Amino acid sequence: MHYPEPISKLIDSFMKLPGIGPKTAQRLAFYVLNMNEEDVVDFSRSLMEVKRELQFCSVCGHITDVDPCYICMDKSRDRSVICVVQDTKDVIAMEKMREYQGMYHVLHGAISPMDGIGPEDINIPPLLERLKDEEVQELILATNPNIEGESTAMYISRLVKPIGLKTTRLAHGLPVGGDLEYADEVTLSKAIEYRTEL
Amino acid sequence: MHYPEPISKLIDSFMKLPGIGPKTAQRLAFYVLNMNEEDVVDFSRSLMEVKRELQFCSVCGHITDVDPCYICMDKSRDRSVICVVQDTKDVIAMEKMREYQGMYHVLHGAISPMDGIGPEDINIPPLLERLKDEEVQELILATNPNIEGESTAMYISRLVKPIGLKTTRLAHGLPVGGDLEYADEVTLSKAIEYRTEL
Repeated sequence: MHYPEPISKLIDSFMKLPGIGPKTAQRLAFYVLNMNEEDVVDFSRSLMEVKRELQFCSVCGHITDVDPCYICMDKSRDRSVICVVQDTKDVIAMEKMREYQGMYHVLHGAISPMDGIGPEDINIPPLLERLKDEEVQELILATNPNIEGESTAMYISRLVKPIGLKTTRLAHGLPVGGDLEYADEVTLSKAIEYRTEL
Repeated sequence: MHYPEPISKLIDSFMKLPGIGPKTAQRLAFYVLNMNEEDVVDFSRSLMEVKRELQFCSVCGHITDVDPCYICMDKSRDRSVICVVQDTKDVIAMEKMREYQGMYHVLHGAISPMDGIGPEDINIPPLLERLKDEEVQELILATNPNIEGESTAMYISRLVKPIGLKTTRLAHGLPVGGDLEYADEVTLSKAIEYRTEL
């Protein structure tokens, strides 16, 4: 099929995005054709800016357009707690909650021997550097509740044990608004194990 | 939620596309973050090119990067037949078939009194200009098989009647590979009406 060159290039670009096949890519490309010029210019520019202006914060590893990032620079936040997460998206999920006021540290992955990812391949050494600061009192290991996340949490907690730092892990249990009948066995057993008194 | 400025702008841009909500837009924006720079530059550039380098062919109204478009310039095509379609995407659908060798005329819409679209609001006058060429023998009215498409076809066919030009309409009937049991009544009645002898 012969599309005009610019359209077929745009279709190819859309198809590189996750979950977008040839049909959707074609639909999106033709939609762009009819969008107003200003919106398309904005779109084109923000694609470049995301790639060129964003970097990882040199302190916590979160994605940012200023270094250090806005969280690390925020004087009102509690510098005694560092929440360790696997991904920059996890920081955003935590921040959406609007309750956590501490700092973050993004690992950019988890230890996974199966994929050949060892402790030195993720952002662990800079974390140990940060822990030398006397101000830090607690490390919340908020890696994902799966095998890789758990072992990464375990690894870090053993590593910092000599420093005598308090390390915690996010609670397991039933999701709020969830249905008991749909909870899997492991979650349910955790929910019983860590039941709280009323 | 505080995203770094470039990301939130990119999320906004993705959300302007059809069928993309906030969650998908966020997923796509973060995916772009991890794409290789070359692909993102290509993406950004093709967005601009689609908007800046594409135009409507001054002859047939198809979208093109050269004027007249590659179809109008193709000397090997049959200039005696013009297929009238509503949309530039219809030209692409026809071309995918690889069987039609005639010319096209894109109306960019259909007559729809309900939406206040009259014959003068769509690309009909240039079509009448083209019909003055003695070479044209047949007009295939391939507007959509719905009320607007049918009335547009009817309107054009009446308009060209005085010229004595052959006007045809695409056949109605069962889709190939379709199931008789799922055909709607109107399609089925058309299929019986226009049944062919074996």
